[in-house]
Amino acid sequence: MIISLIYNQNAYTDAISDITGEKVQVCLTKEEALKYLPETEIIVTIGGGNFSVPLDEEMLQAAPSLKWVFSVSAGVEKLPLKELKERGILATNTSGVHAVTIAEYVMGGLLVMSHHYDRYLPLMKEKKWGELISGEDMEGKTILIIGAGHIGSEIGRKAGAFDMQVFGLKRTPCELDGFAGVYSMDKLKEMLPKADYVVMAAPLTQETYHLIGEEEFALMKKEAVFVNIARGDTVEEEALIAALREGRIQGAVLDVFHEEPLPEASPLWELDNVLITPHSSAISKNVIKKIIRMFKESFEKYKKGETLINEL
Amino acid sequence: MIISLIYNQNAYTDAISDITGEKVQVCLTKEEALKYLPETEIIVTIGGGNFSVPLDEEMLQAAPSLKWVFSVSAGVEKLPLKELKERGILATNTSGVHAVTIAEYVMGGLLVMSHHYDRYLPLMKEKKWGELISGEDMEGKTILIIGAGHIGSEIGRKAGAFDMQVFGLKRTPCELDGFAGVYSMDKLKEMLPKADYVVMAAPLTQETYHLIGEEEFALMKKEAVFVNIARGDTVEEEALIAALREGRIQGAVLDVFHEEPLPEASPLWELDNVLITPHSSAISKNVIKKIIRMFKESFEKYKKGETLINEL
Repeated sequence: MIISLIYNQNAYTDAISDITGEKVQVCLTKEEALKYLPETEIIVTIGGGNFSVPLDEEMLQAAPSLKWVFSVSAGVEKLPLKELKERGILATNTSGVHAVTIAEYVMGGLLVMSHHYDRYLPLMKEKKWGELISGEDMEGKTILIIGAGHIGSEIGRKAGAFDMQVFGLKRTPCELDGFAGVYSMDKLKEMLPKADYVVMAAPLTQETYHLIGEEEFALMKKEAVFVNIARGDTVEEEALIAALREGRIQGAVLDVFHEEPLPEASPLWELDNVLITPHSSAISKNVIKKIIRMFKESFEKYKKGETLINEL
Repeated sequence: MIISLIYNQNAYTDAISDITGEKVQVCLTKEEALKYLPETEIIVTIGGGNFSVPLDEEMLQAAPSLKWVFSVSAGVEKLPLKELKERGILATNTSGVHAVTIAEYVMGGLLVMSHHYDRYLPLMKEKKWGELISGEDMEGKTILIIGAGHIGSEIGRKAGAFDMQVFGLKRTPCELDGFAGVYSMDKLKEMLPKADYVVMAAPLTQETYHLIGEEEFALMKKEAVFVNIARGDTVEEEALIAALREGRIQGAVLDVFHEEPLPEASPLWELDNVLITPHSSAISKNVIKKIIRMFKESFEKYKKGETLINEL
């Protein structure tokens, strides 16, 4: 049996059932999952972000037949990778499939800010023809992408096509299409003052937890726009709020937060230099198709005992 | 003396005065202009769009010393080109300088629609975390660009970098970077049913007046998004409103209209599948710099009796 622990995404259930010919049980809570884990061979879940049901020790002990955990997300900071490995349970993520969608979201957010869609569109309700506000071309601007993996490098490729100067930071620097330079992460403080746009695209790890805080915001240009499509906790949210509130940076495009859904009490809602989306940057019809295709290919390999795609 | 007939754009006045060392007189109406035309050698104006003060016969007769009309816009449908030529008065436009800015605006508008910024951003006022809506990747989609001149070809180049299939229509077809095909304008009806995005980027001429009407909207996909960054009258606005209202196309990104400012009574304001901006797509700090640079270069040529940039 396959257990689907996916919060609020039913698109996968039918597809997984079709592909595997197995019964798929959707469980939205740990309690529900515990009922079905004894017979479960494959878990399809969200391995990271704020909607995942973390797999804990109790659940692992309840699942003696578990062989494979498939994460529909790329981030898997809530999967117990070490414990899974010790038990010989395979874990895979979908690293790569979200890159195009997230890169489009990022370019979209930056264009909204640069060409003032955020200022003009709210006037529609009032049927008001806005005063002209000179936009900022993205051409010629400098973008710093923190974490130039699948997602970051796709953002860079698109930014390069917009004739921006693209810099990336990456644990293991390499040449990337569209980038003027890719450096190791320890160049962060050196690069921040150069960037008109700073995009956080690194996975949440011990090294990236609160990577951007008061000191880093202070190093950014006053005109800088900060984008977070990674995880909220790569940034000290209080420091971000202070930087935005005091105009120490120009604005932010935020898809991820310390707590999601973003609480009503968050001061972020009231800032007029921020775009907030509900962790939606990776969601597109194409992405769901790509994830299902990846599951299908991996499932065929699984049946033959071959190496799966994106084993962790 | 130089007369500046630019409506509502003071950014140029000082620059033109600096470059030429001449007195620059800003005139916002024909009556004002008539006072200064007798001594005017160069007119800097907006040659098209709804804000221009058209140069009419009376004005030309009042300007015996007029030698050069410089349009800060690319579109010059309100300049009396034939009459100017007959009198030996030079006319130039700024074709080329707006391309990047407008192309960024177009990509921004399409990304707003595809990744649902238009649905999420209005929720911010209510401090509301939106329900996830699956976006549409632009990758893999087909875009048809009507009018593949400076602006259209730049839109196509960027769309190509987003891995879209790009088709262009152009009076004189030629190969263009990023385009899968560029055809003559008579292929319009054949190409419309193929496109997910239809972008109007042709100048307003007798041939393009009401080029897109009921029949053309009927040929578009139900999922098509229509973009107009050219002139409102390239489209039959009533037909556009009907197509949007009845869901015969998915939506529209509109920067230009039959009447500008768009009247409060226009039904377009109330449609929730439309983005309206106030003819702002060509406005950026860079564009103003580029126009001033082009004026400067042309002015130096003018002083030496050389051919100006973009003579019409």
